[in-house]
Amino acid sequence: MRIEMICTGEEVLSGQIVDTNAAWVANTLMEQGYELNRKMTVGDRMDDLVDAFVQASERADIIIVNGGLGPTVDDLSAEAAAKALGEPVVMFDQWRKVMESMFAARGRTMTSSNLKQAMLPASAVVVDNPVGTACGFRVKLNGAWLFFTPGVPHELFRMIEEQFLPFLRDLNPEAGGQVRVHKLLTLGQAESAMANDIADIDVPCPEGVSLGYRASMPHIEVKLFCRQSVNPDAFEQYCSAVRQVLGDSLVGENLPTMAAIVHELMLESGKSLALAESCTGGMVAEQLVTLAGSSAYLEGSLVTYSNHAKQVLCGVSETTLADFGAVSMETTKEMAEGARSRLGADYGVSISGIAGPTGGSEEKPVGTVCFSLSTAKGTVSQTFAFSKGAQRSRTLVRKLSAAVALDMLRRQLLELHPVANYPFLTRVSQA
Amino acid sequence: MRIEMICTGEEVLSGQIVDTNAAWVANTLMEQGYELNRKMTVGDRMDDLVDAFVQASERADIIIVNGGLGPTVDDLSAEAAAKALGEPVVMFDQWRKVMESMFAARGRTMTSSNLKQAMLPASAVVVDNPVGTACGFRVKLNGAWLFFTPGVPHELFRMIEEQFLPFLRDLNPEAGGQVRVHKLLTLGQAESAMANDIADIDVPCPEGVSLGYRASMPHIEVKLFCRQSVNPDAFEQYCSAVRQVLGDSLVGENLPTMAAIVHELMLESGKSLALAESCTGGMVAEQLVTLAGSSAYLEGSLVTYSNHAKQVLCGVSETTLADFGAVSMETTKEMAEGARSRLGADYGVSISGIAGPTGGSEEKPVGTVCFSLSTAKGTVSQTFAFSKGAQRSRTLVRKLSAAVALDMLRRQLLELHPVANYPFLTRVSQA
Repeated sequence: MRIEMICTGEEVLSGQIVDTNAAWVANTLMEQGYELNRKMTVGDRMDDLVDAFVQASERADIIIVNGGLGPTVDDLSAEAAAKALGEPVVMFDQWRKVMESMFAARGRTMTSSNLKQAMLPASAVVVDNPVGTACGFRVKLNGAWLFFTPGVPHELFRMIEEQFLPFLRDLNPEAGGQVRVHKLLTLGQAESAMANDIADIDVPCPEGVSLGYRASMPHIEVKLFCRQSVNPDAFEQYCSAVRQVLGDSLVGENLPTMAAIVHELMLESGKSLALAESCTGGMVAEQLVTLAGSSAYLEGSLVTYSNHAKQVLCGVSETTLADFGAVSMETTKEMAEGARSRLGADYGVSISGIAGPTGGSEEKPVGTVCFSLSTAKGTVSQTFAFSKGAQRSRTLVRKLSAAVALDMLRRQLLELHPVANYPFLTRVSQA
Repeated sequence: MRIEMICTGEEVLSGQIVDTNAAWVANTLMEQGYELNRKMTVGDRMDDLVDAFVQASERADIIIVNGGLGPTVDDLSAEAAAKALGEPVVMFDQWRKVMESMFAARGRTMTSSNLKQAMLPASAVVVDNPVGTACGFRVKLNGAWLFFTPGVPHELFRMIEEQFLPFLRDLNPEAGGQVRVHKLLTLGQAESAMANDIADIDVPCPEGVSLGYRASMPHIEVKLFCRQSVNPDAFEQYCSAVRQVLGDSLVGENLPTMAAIVHELMLESGKSLALAESCTGGMVAEQLVTLAGSSAYLEGSLVTYSNHAKQVLCGVSETTLADFGAVSMETTKEMAEGARSRLGADYGVSISGIAGPTGGSEEKPVGTVCFSLSTAKGTVSQTFAFSKGAQRSRTLVRKLSAAVALDMLRRQLLELHPVANYPFLTRVSQA
C-alpha cells in the first residue's frame, strides 16, 4: 500500500513555518507500521493544487492532504479537490449544523466566512473534526483515496488518530506492523567516525535491518529500521555490538531527548534537583518542565545571567568571581553547591560558559563551558572547549552545554562517574 | 523561472526530524525575491530518488536537492543522479585532495568511507563546501539544473548563500527582487475573526498584494505578500488600516518572535530585567538568552517551580501561599517584587499558573495563569483563564503564558498600560 502526503499552504512552502505536521504524521504512521513513501508541499495556487492531487492519485493508494480547510481566502483544498474530480462544491448541511452548534456552545456568532468550511466536493465523505470548524473529508480519485485534514496541529492529530488510522486499518488489514525503528541517542561523537565504527562491527547486521543516522545537534541518533520481521536474537546481538562501539557516547534508547531520559531517571530515583544556569539561560529547566510530572523532582533553577545574580542567588563569593572569573570550575562549584543548599535539593547542577558570538578571550575562547554536579558526597566539575565553537551558533553551544550538564546527572543517577569520555568533545580540565 | 526542492533522507520522510532546511531555503529564496514552486521529500531508496530527479527535471528549471551527500551507506544522492543521467560515478581527484587537506588540518586521518564523498556523476560541476567534507555539485538533466547540497544545516546555509544564489542570479538576471513579505505578529485574536475584520476594511487592498495567515501558537502572523512592484503609498495606507483593526492584538512587525520584540526594546531602554517563572519553567529567560546581547539587560530568572523555591528565592510569604495559593496574583506580586529587589533590576516580571494536564481545580482550572509586572512605581497583576486550556497541550499553555508576560513588559516599555485587551483571551481579574 503506497501512502503519500501533500502539505498545502504558501506559509509552509515559503518557509515561513517549519512543517512539523508532516513530521508528526510520518512518525505516527511509522509507529503504526506504515511507511510514508513521498511527501510534497505545494503553495496556495489552484493549478498547482489540482495538479498535485491528480499526480499523486496516479501513483499512490492513499494521499493525506494537510491544510487549506480554513475560512480564509487562501484556503483552497476543497475547491481544488472538486476541480480535480470534475465536480462542483456543494453545501454540506450536516457540517453547517455542526459548526452552528459549535459556535453556539462558545457563545459566539458564526461568521459568514465560516460557511465556506461546509462547502465540499459533491462526492465527499465527511470526516468528523471534534475540536474545530474545519471539516475533514475524503474523496476517491483515479482509484486512490484523498484524505483531507486540517492544518491546525491539535485538530490534525486527533483526526489522524481517531479517523485516519482506523480507516487505514479497515482498508487493508494486512498492512501495518512491519516497520519499526530502534533508536540510540548519542552525544559527543562524529557521524562519520560512528558510521565507520559500526560498519566495522563483526556481528552481521540481521537481514531486514537498515541503518540510519540523524544529526540533530547536539545529538546524533543511530536508527535501526526493521522493515520486516527480524529475528529478535540476531537483532539483540547486533544491537549489543552497536552499544559497545558507541561507549560513553550512548546516552539513551528509544527516548527522544536527553531531558526525557533524565526525567525518567529522576522520577524513579525519588530525589530532588536544583539548577543554576548561566549561559544556558534556563534551557535545562525549560527542557525538564516541558515534561509533565517534573514538579515531582525539580525544585527550581537559578538563572544567574549576571555576576551580581550569581552572588545574590547562588552565594558565589566575590573573591571567586574576581580570581577565577564567571566561567570557571570554581564558580560553577559554588553555583551548584549554592543552588543545592538554598533549594534543599539532593542534586545541584550548574553551567557557566561563553556562548558567543562575543565574550571570548585567548585563554577562554567562545565555546568554553564549565559544569559542576553537587551531591551530599561532594562536587564534580569539568570544563569543555567545544571545538569549532566560534563557527557554531550561540544556540548550538548552549544546546551542547545543556546536554552535557544533563548527562552528568544521568550518569550520577546510574551510579557511573559523572565525567564521561566523548570522542568528539574536548575536555580541558576536571576537578 | 520555476524552482523546486527535493529533500532526501529516510529521517526527514519518516518524521524523525522536522525539515528545517527546506523552510530555511524557501525563506531565504523569498527574501531574495525568488519563489519556491514545489517541495518534495523522498526516502533513501534508489528508485524513488531517480524517479524524483527525472520528474522534477521535466517540470522545473532549477531543482535544489538537499541531503544524501554524506559518507554513510544511506547517502545515495550522487549515485542516483548518475543513474538519472545514464552515466557512471567517477572519482573527482579535485575533491579528494580538498578532503585530505581538510582532515590533515584537523589532525585526523581520512576514513575510507569519506572517499565516497568524492565520487560524483561524470558530468558534474563541483560546488565548493568550505566547511565540510560533503562536496556540492550540479548536473544538467532534461534542460534543468539539479543543484546538490549537503544536509548538515550550517554547510547547506553557506552553500546556498555563497554558491547557489550567485548561480541563480547569473542564470537569470531578470528574475528575483519581486516578492517580499510584510509581517504583522499578533497575540490573542482568532484567525477567522481576524480574517473577517481584515476583509471588511474599506481601504482597498492594493493590486499585487495578497494576504496570508500563519497560525503558530501562541501567535498568528498576518502576512502581506507583495508579488510585484506595489505602490508604496497605497500599501502603507492599507497596512495602517490593518493595524487599526488588529488593535491590542498587534504586538510587532517584521520581527519573528515576542522575545525579539522585547529584546530590541529592552536594549533601547537601557533598563534591566529580573524574572520569576513558575509554570513557564525558564521559558521566558531562555527565549531572551537565545538572542545575543541579552546580557546587557537580563539579570537573571528565578525559576521557582516548588512552593519552597518561591519562598526561599523570591521571598513569597508562607501566609500568602497558604491563603491564596501558588497560582494567585498575590503570589505573583510577591514573586515579581522579590525578583526585582533581590536582583536589583528596574523591572520584575513573574508568572505562575496551571499548565496541566493535571493540577487544575474547579476554582482554578488548567489554563489559569497569573502574571505580575513590578516597577519602581508599583506592581500590575492580571489573571487569565486560557480558553480550551484543558484541551490544549501543556506546552501551548506555557507558550501563551510566556507571550503574555513578555507583552506586559513590551507595553510598559512603550508607555502603554501593561494590561492589554485581547479579543480571544479571557482575563478573569486584574489588580
